[in-house]
Amino acid sequence: MKALIFDEKNSIKVVDKDKPSIQKPTDVIVKMTKTTICGSDLHILSGDVPAVTAGRTLGHEGIGIVEEVGSSVNNFKVGDRVLISCVTACGICENCKKGLYAHCKDGGWILGHLIDGTQAEYVRIPHADNSLYPIPEGADEEAMVMLSDILPTGFEIGVLFGKVKPGDTIAIIGSGPVGMAVLLTAQFYSPAEIIMVDLDDNRLEVAKKFGATKVVNSSDGKAYEKIMELTHQKGVDVAIEAVGVPSTFLLCQEIVCAGGRIANVGVHGKSVDLHLDRLWIRNITITTGLVGTNSTPMLLKTVTSGKIKPQQLITHHFTFNEIEKAYDVFKNAAMNKALKVMISNE
Amino acid sequence: MKALIFDEKNSIKVVDKDKPSIQKPTDVIVKMTKTTICGSDLHILSGDVPAVTAGRTLGHEGIGIVEEVGSSVNNFKVGDRVLISCVTACGICENCKKGLYAHCKDGGWILGHLIDGTQAEYVRIPHADNSLYPIPEGADEEAMVMLSDILPTGFEIGVLFGKVKPGDTIAIIGSGPVGMAVLLTAQFYSPAEIIMVDLDDNRLEVAKKFGATKVVNSSDGKAYEKIMELTHQKGVDVAIEAVGVPSTFLLCQEIVCAGGRIANVGVHGKSVDLHLDRLWIRNITITTGLVGTNSTPMLLKTVTSGKIKPQQLITHHFTFNEIEKAYDVFKNAAMNKALKVMISNE
Amino acid sequence: MKALIFDEKNSIKVVDKDKPSIQKPTDVIVKMTKTTICGSDLHILSGDVPAVTAGRTLGHEGIGIVEEVGSSVNNFKVGDRVLISCVTACGICENCKKGLYAHCKDGGWILGHLIDGTQAEYVRIPHADNSLYPIPEGADEEAMVMLSDILPTGFEIGVLFGKVKPGDTIAIIGSGPVGMAVLLTAQFYSPAEIIMVDLDDNRLEVAKKFGATKVVNSSDGKAYEKIMELTHQKGVDVAIEAVGVPSTFLLCQEIVCAGGRIANVGVHGKSVDLHLDRLWIRNITITTGLVGTNSTPMLLKTVTSGKIKPQQLITHHFTFNEIEKAYDVFKNAAMNKALKVMISNE
Amino acid sequence: MKALIFDEKNSIKVVDKDKPSIQKPTDVIVKMTKTTICGSDLHILSGDVPAVTAGRTLGHEGIGIVEEVGSSVNNFKVGDRVLISCVTACGICENCKKGLYAHCKDGGWILGHLIDGTQAEYVRIPHADNSLYPIPEGADEEAMVMLSDILPTGFEIGVLFGKVKPGDTIAIIGSGPVGMAVLLTAQFYSPAEIIMVDLDDNRLEVAKKFGATKVVNSSDGKAYEKIMELTHQKGVDVAIEAVGVPSTFLLCQEIVCAGGRIANVGVHGKSVDLHLDRLWIRNITITTGLVGTNSTPMLLKTVTSGKIKPQQLITHHFTFNEIEKAYDVFKNAAMNKALKVMISNE
Repeated sequence: MKALIFDEKNSIKVVDKDKPSIQKPTDVIVKMTKTTICGSDLHILSGDVPAVTAGRTLGHEGIGIVEEVGSSVNNFKVGDRVLISCVTACGICENCKKGLYAHCKDGGWILGHLIDGTQAEYVRIPHADNSLYPIPEGADEEAMVMLSDILPTGFEIGVLFGKVKPGDTIAIIGSGPVGMAVLLTAQFYSPAEIIMVDLDDNRLEVAKKFGATKVVNSSDGKAYEKIMELTHQKGVDVAIEAVGVPSTFLLCQEIVCAGGRIANVGVHGKSVDLHLDRLWIRNITITTGLVGTNSTPMLLKTVTSGKIKPQQLITHHFTFNEIEKAYDVFKNAAMNKALKVMISNE
Repeated sequence: MKALIFDEKNSIKVVDKDKPSIQKPTDVIVKMTKTTICGSDLHILSGDVPAVTAGRTLGHEGIGIVEEVGSSVNNFKVGDRVLISCVTACGICENCKKGLYAHCKDGGWILGHLIDGTQAEYVRIPHADNSLYPIPEGADEEAMVMLSDILPTGFEIGVLFGKVKPGDTIAIIGSGPVGMAVLLTAQFYSPAEIIMVDLDDNRLEVAKKFGATKVVNSSDGKAYEKIMELTHQKGVDVAIEAVGVPSTFLLCQEIVCAGGRIANVGVHGKSVDLHLDRLWIRNITITTGLVGTNSTPMLLKTVTSGKIKPQQLITHHFTFNEIEKAYDVFKNAAMNKALKVMISNE
Repeated sequence: MKALIFDEKNSIKVVDKDKPSIQKPTDVIVKMTKTTICGSDLHILSGDVPAVTAGRTLGHEGIGIVEEVGSSVNNFKVGDRVLISCVTACGICENCKKGLYAHCKDGGWILGHLIDGTQAEYVRIPHADNSLYPIPEGADEEAMVMLSDILPTGFEIGVLFGKVKPGDTIAIIGSGPVGMAVLLTAQFYSPAEIIMVDLDDNRLEVAKKFGATKVVNSSDGKAYEKIMELTHQKGVDVAIEAVGVPSTFLLCQEIVCAGGRIANVGVHGKSVDLHLDRLWIRNITITTGLVGTNSTPMLLKTVTSGKIKPQQLITHHFTFNEIEKAYDVFKNAAMNKALKVMISNE
Repeated sequence: MKALIFDEKNSIKVVDKDKPSIQKPTDVIVKMTKTTICGSDLHILSGDVPAVTAGRTLGHEGIGIVEEVGSSVNNFKVGDRVLISCVTACGICENCKKGLYAHCKDGGWILGHLIDGTQAEYVRIPHADNSLYPIPEGADEEAMVMLSDILPTGFEIGVLFGKVKPGDTIAIIGSGPVGMAVLLTAQFYSPAEIIMVDLDDNRLEVAKKFGATKVVNSSDGKAYEKIMELTHQKGVDVAIEAVGVPSTFLLCQEIVCAGGRIANVGVHGKSVDLHLDRLWIRNITITTGLVGTNSTPMLLKTVTSGKIKPQQLITHHFTFNEIEKAYDVFKNAAMNKALKVMISNE
């Protein structure tokens, strides 16, 4: 079968590989129909994730059709259309029992990282009963792909950890795909104001369509002043970091009001300054996290009932043969006005 | 009357001052009977709190007897014995209505900071109905003084914000008065293990008497290794910082387990490194805060019912005439085996 | 001044009364501009609320202009336009400190009940700093009247106590004014399905316009069967009782799923059967309550930002001279296709 | 093997049966070493649980040694000493994913109910990875048996659902085994007062030893008056029903304070009167539930660390040969001063 592998720093390629096979009775083999590329795939490509070794098939998102089923899988049978969760959960370890699937002792983020992933014709999914979801009848397939990672990440790590509440004023720093996923799902809790921040005017225009009530272009270095003015010098109840660099995390510290929350969604490569000299007295909560995908059943309901249309995040379409081109577009996302790129195997 | 004032950096002195008088109908004048010294008084003395101007009477803790009552005070009358809360709350501003008394728009921490404080013969207490508590019949008076600040601070900012739960393994970094207050009140929630960390063996011995299940002397720079060994390499569910320097906050980041909490209680003078490069993926919650004293009614019940004996924190006794000597002892607390020092006006 | 008083069972009348005056320094006198009638006013009229004595001015809802201010009122001055909360809160008693304003030891629901109310030209508001809210610039005045009682009641007692969450399936039993207030505010939390139940098709049509996703006319006695079918025999996550009779509370017990919640909003005159023989094993939570109006600041933000338009609940308009007619219309609400009736003093 | 079976109403007997065998790859066969009898076994005996058919082996509590392991069991191997949870959880159905193990679609309470149970020499445990726990090295074996059902039931359904908090005044109605389990585990949260109610003075004496701060013998019909007096007419913050009859549930309604909680732990055979006419306005929360045993890992830690000694609940010891005698003693528990009876297979 064809698979997109990590070759070496800054190099990926499509190669022929053996089709995966069942290794444990809890495995399922999925024939991929659609996948996408995540910001963390770009981090891997840059060599930032040393655990990824040469030859690893990338990808942890997508949908497909069940091809083969391990002997103790209960929930799935051959032919089922399934959504693949980016996080694999055994369901029985200490962390899974707490609902902390991201830190499953025999799973977590392993797809396209520690084991071969979804950017291929077939993929092996361990602990399938806890890591796959049936696709509801009539569901939009491209919407489903957004539920593998980007939408639960924005919702759980941004909205739930940030405890967005009705009437809140919130700011989302970064209007890339994950910032947009925060924007879409924050509206589940009816904040009064959603201030979207980015360097790119096109993305801010899109953000307005997706529900931002105010937008701030931060390229002039005045985001702090602008946000304080928009909030009548009160700051925001929740500041959500969706970029992953020190300056945006610093902005969150500046704009959060006393008693407020900072939810970090961005993937960071360096430590940041935390101004405890100012913040020790401010009753602030800061959260971090990898998605657990615990919210997937709920998100499936809201997508199916039409409350939210995550397929709006998809800007470009490719076939699997064009996957290297898809990477090129996604690497230069702002320039290409790209959010999520859809890659179809069919 | 006599009052202990901030003179200039590193200088305090007892002076004669006019007795305070009612300025607003919500004020009460209290004749002080007992007070104590807080770590933040030492910060003021070192010149770290520039808002405190020369001549300011220090102190935000203590008990006394109501001397005079403003015309719209409902809960108190002349002669009542009262506990003074370190935080003043109007009860009607936006923050008070959220229960965020620490950030009351017309109060917060103002005693001995922005207005004259309790280290004097008399003190004026604004918004008295929300900032004083009647002392229950038969209550230990010295225990009451511990409820002005140190006990609610340890409980609210350490234990509640850290969400200490039955069965948890927690570490408290710093065994000074506030660390000890965390230790006493953490036991309300029955953690399975409480690891107490300090540089001073005497304090660690006291900590064992107060309920620590394990102690770690960190003076050899191996606190991390020791705590990981004590926790079978799992780390702690909750790490509570009760010192206020970068190295102890860093230790908290190292020892907290995935899904765990860091509750910062220490007063910091500098920013600290936050290792988001390691922590972004770890599902960590970090909290900071100034006490609200919302827990005072509950703490009064537990002290009155004998569940907790905060007077154990008191190591030294002085009369008000000896208050400068009390400051000397408290400034060199570890050397003097001091935790809290009690100062009596009688 | 003119005032609508309770005379005797089934009799109210407009009489001349003395204009109220300041009795305590925390009082404010408000010149009423708009008021409305509540279901509980009808209960009083029927003689169900014996605490209401002959001559009592009725009403606990409305807006007006500050006419006179007690000496210790901080937040209001003569001429301010204000929203009157149906619940009076001293802000300093044990219950107020817990946020349980409904059970304030010196307040709670007293207006038009234990003291003279708002269906008059002037009203005295005790504890005004905690019981009035400034009307935001540009706010719709009729929308504001809905914030005295009906909207916070629906939101706090129905939606918050029922813990409505994104993706939930909920049922609201009763489509009168308070059921409609639940319907409007439940949408703050984006449930996937809202099933509205009533005996009256007109009200169900209105409910659809207000956001119900499904409606059930229960006049054929088959509400249980219909709701189970609509939910694929799962039942609902949250059942909200908004009528106040045994049969509707029984329906809630039948349709709630394992692990679900029943939020009782209705005012009941009799005890009901609770089927603990079936429910002891079902992990059900049942809540009751009088509104605290703690949510008023949040509701003001969402109304001001246009997230919600509670003035939609108003179906009829009267002048104060016509208030007895307004009672007649409201008493026969379903027949008159009435929800809330607006009464203007101007 | 020998097994104690339900024969017909009011009749049980020990019979010879085939040793159970693995039916699904997720099963484990456990050789029982110790078991006990639950109040619900008595309900079965009285014919109150029609789902239990003639010939069913009773029992859902106990510990043992793993005898045989299904092919997809990950956590256990032959020879492991294990604690059996009374609730079986598949870990992958909709309810399990919410943590609602009591309502697992392929489990829940099935042992000794819908499938053969633990009062035998061997038992088959379905979904073993989620339904068994390894017994920690050095743990008291009899303490472990208390963790199958009685202790998590008291803790989860009484203490957690009742939201017992530090400083609370709570009442536990019923001092049988489950009431005592509530009493022991309520102390994890340091309530200020625990009022224990029963008809039997001996049980009340035991309750005092286990930590009750006040006891009330309700045999004179004056429990309400006594509890109100003990609470200075305030009532209790949490009333926990641990009997299962209408009169005790009614008492809970009478003694709960405004804003308080009623946690029903008792197994009820009839519906009860709920006085919504009085309670609709009182901001009360009522909870019911079957245990999920989600708290078992935490309870294991607190038992292992010696915080709690549930073996105190054991009053009588029998061998498996004497199991019918054990039933006789337990059926007349108060007369025999019995709480839990221990039955050993060795």
